[in-house]
Amino acid sequence: MVLLPSLRYVLTFTGGIAFSTWVNRRVTKRRAAQAAINKTPNKEVASPKLFIDTANAHMGSAMLKAAVELNVFTAIAAVTRKGEAPPTAARVAEACRCSERGMRILLDVLTAEGFLVKSVSSRPMYTYKLTPSSGKYLDRASPSCLADSVSWFCGDDYVKPLWTGLVDSIVTGSATAATRETAEARRLTFARAMGPKTRSTAVKVAAAALARGGARDRILDVAAGHGMYGVLLATQHGSGRDNGHATSTLTAMDAAPLLAAAAPAAAAAGLRGARYAQLAGDPAALEWGYASYDCVIMANYLQTLGADAAAALLRKARAALAPGGRAYIVEALADEDRERGEGTLMALPLLALTRDGETRTFAEVHALCVAAGFAASEVVPLPNSTQTLVVAYQEAPAPDAGVGSVKGAGVVTAAQAGPAQVGDVALFGEAARRAAREDFPSPEETTWNYPMSLGDFFSLVERMVVSSITKNPFE
Amino acid sequence: MVLLPSLRYVLTFTGGIAFSTWVNRRVTKRRAAQAAINKTPNKEVASPKLFIDTANAHMGSAMLKAAVELNVFTAIAAVTRKGEAPPTAARVAEACRCSERGMRILLDVLTAEGFLVKSVSSRPMYTYKLTPSSGKYLDRASPSCLADSVSWFCGDDYVKPLWTGLVDSIVTGSATAATRETAEARRLTFARAMGPKTRSTAVKVAAAALARGGARDRILDVAAGHGMYGVLLATQHGSGRDNGHATSTLTAMDAAPLLAAAAPAAAAAGLRGARYAQLAGDPAALEWGYASYDCVIMANYLQTLGADAAAALLRKARAALAPGGRAYIVEALADEDRERGEGTLMALPLLALTRDGETRTFAEVHALCVAAGFAASEVVPLPNSTQTLVVAYQEAPAPDAGVGSVKGAGVVTAAQAGPAQVGDVALFGEAARRAAREDFPSPEETTWNYPMSLGDFFSLVERMVVSSITKNPFE
Repeated sequence: MVLLPSLRYVLTFTGGIAFSTWVNRRVTKRRAAQAAINKTPNKEVASPKLFIDTANAHMGSAMLKAAVELNVFTAIAAVTRKGEAPPTAARVAEACRCSERGMRILLDVLTAEGFLVKSVSSRPMYTYKLTPSSGKYLDRASPSCLADSVSWFCGDDYVKPLWTGLVDSIVTGSATAATRETAEARRLTFARAMGPKTRSTAVKVAAAALARGGARDRILDVAAGHGMYGVLLATQHGSGRDNGHATSTLTAMDAAPLLAAAAPAAAAAGLRGARYAQLAGDPAALEWGYASYDCVIMANYLQTLGADAAAALLRKARAALAPGGRAYIVEALADEDRERGEGTLMALPLLALTRDGETRTFAEVHALCVAAGFAASEVVPLPNSTQTLVVAYQEAPAPDAGVGSVKGAGVVTAAQAGPAQVGDVALFGEAARRAAREDFPSPEETTWNYPMSLGDFFSLVERMVVSSITKNPFE
Repeated sequence: MVLLPSLRYVLTFTGGIAFSTWVNRRVTKRRAAQAAINKTPNKEVASPKLFIDTANAHMGSAMLKAAVELNVFTAIAAVTRKGEAPPTAARVAEACRCSERGMRILLDVLTAEGFLVKSVSSRPMYTYKLTPSSGKYLDRASPSCLADSVSWFCGDDYVKPLWTGLVDSIVTGSATAATRETAEARRLTFARAMGPKTRSTAVKVAAAALARGGARDRILDVAAGHGMYGVLLATQHGSGRDNGHATSTLTAMDAAPLLAAAAPAAAAAGLRGARYAQLAGDPAALEWGYASYDCVIMANYLQTLGADAAAALLRKARAALAPGGRAYIVEALADEDRERGEGTLMALPLLALTRDGETRTFAEVHALCVAAGFAASEVVPLPNSTQTLVVAYQEAPAPDAGVGSVKGAGVVTAAQAGPAQVGDVALFGEAARRAAREDFPSPEETTWNYPMSLGDFFSLVERMVVSSITKNPFE
């Protein structure tokens, strides 16, 4: 295995991943804005297009919600699964008990939005079929189906407070108590609806943890929700020395109604009896214990808290970790300048629905970790995900120790970077920004074949890094 | 002036224009879908990205609505107009009487969505400025400002029935009576909010009418709303023989509350006394008169009606026109196969909010015109607009008569194409589709300098056609 050349390449690679979502989604808009500002400052390129597209965007969400509720994707897939030709609008309407006119219009709009493919060659007897993406993620018979998460993304309990409360939240800087209660109640919806979606991220987090070695006998999942992150960390195992790791215990911490979602998931994975415990209540109010865990997981939770509450939570996590323990923080990170990307965008619903939650930059999370007494933190991109893993180390790992060079190279230690974004932390931001400015090509789609051996893991990372380096526009 | 080479080029050019919106907006999605289906049928390229982006899209609309309501764009522009440096989030927050935290998050999200530019170089003292598009269309001090149209695109009286009633409309094929009443009441909002937006389209329609010659002494504007289309047709004039056309009379037809919006617009343009008349009521119930008008305008109205009601309306229009008169139909047209583009998408709100309205293809509008007794119809693309003008001729113009060859070349006569989409009408659809399939480049942004002479108009069209021809991928 070739050692990775330097810290810089790892960071460059990180930048490429972190903004691949942005590169794909917003490149047209941003290119227009950049051209307007940077390249042709005096040429008028004003257009109302972005305004009108954005103002109309809510119709796309309404369309998708209606199609999922009417079971349209599953009905189309069912016909094809029987080996029959793709269905006409009339046939889909019959299967979904809808009017033909209403279904035809819906299917055409779904086609225009890229969810279906219409048989133009058979005009005027059109038929419709699913795209591969719709087949995998919207057909309820598919194991990867995300259709139920529409109730999370587009539920009335989300859309209504967001639309009606946003102006007030901007004026006051905080969601009203009533809105916060609604949002809190939504965590149960999330736990139920988002299991399928978060599972693939949880697999990647568990794989990254495996690759970094360290004990994981005692695992605490804070604000566990559906429990997926803790369950996978406690039960997945790689090959070689880490094989047969079947004695981990999981403690799930969350409000009592949420634990009702986590417990069955744990039991289904074999975490029963002495291997599973619960702590019911608000993580801020509960006692976490002292030096009691090897791993503490906080997924999509830190961002819902303001800086003081987040700092207090990390202090509790640091105290709860045994020597050599690690905290795994999983959430969307904002770019250093908060000017693009999913992490920056997600600050809006957090403003609308929480008291003082906000997506953070890596530098901010790092500073919180250092202030809480962690020795080092490491940012780990998760392939094909809008979320990022931050590993906070109770003790700094030796640069050349551990399971491989990736860990040493990727770690930003407290000695290298203080709480402010200087040194390597700043390089992280700058490298990412420069990469994005140059329209750094996003890495090709990769399949994360889990479980994989550690050797396979490093080999995969190496290939991706090499791929980034060969295309590096500023070498 | 060089005569246009043939009908085919005109039609090809039409196809290029008609889908420029789609080409810009949806090319990424569609390319992915096409690659998945056509080019690599066995390669798995499934991704949840389109699903998640679409499910989240409503947040962009909510963001924009909040920013307009809080006057953010105007506040930023006001600072720059005073010659001062672009403002910080704190300064914008003060101007808009908002919390700094809430405003900072909003400004960052607006930046990520392409509405603002953030001064990355001045980190951490960030400032914000408008893009040229935001400056032109969202600053209330700009004469082109569209900000108020947010109340149309994102008003509660639109978003709420659309979100709550869509499933029911798909099931039954029609909006409920209550929803239809809400939608009808919205026409007054439209008349008030959309004047600025429709003005640029109305200018293009008037210019196209001018270029085609013919009398326009007596003008009837059906469902006049804000009155902009009729006012411009009655008052704008070109150069040469058409100069000084200052005796046109305008009759505005609409429900009484709407006429309260049209009358001041007419008066402001000098249409007073004998030059302005009103017909208050439902166009379907009113008497229009016989051979009384040279021009009948129907903008964004035919699409709100089902086929029978639309046919009846066109028969009334045909009867109301004097010999040589023309009907001008302005609305978004669906592509021939209803598989892409703004016209196809707009069928969704029409399904949700009307009894049986739907966007139509040109072939369908043409068939309705022919059935109503019109001799010919012509489709006229409107540059940089999602709408299209259809001119229905009471008498077929002689192929080489009139003001120029564009008219003759662009006309699809009743003799050439029957009610079904055959012959040249089919060529229109096929040419457009083939052009779109090949990612036919959209014409460059053009500035429509109105008023322009007829010579300038033809010269502009000629340049655009030639530009299309030189890039024609299937010659």
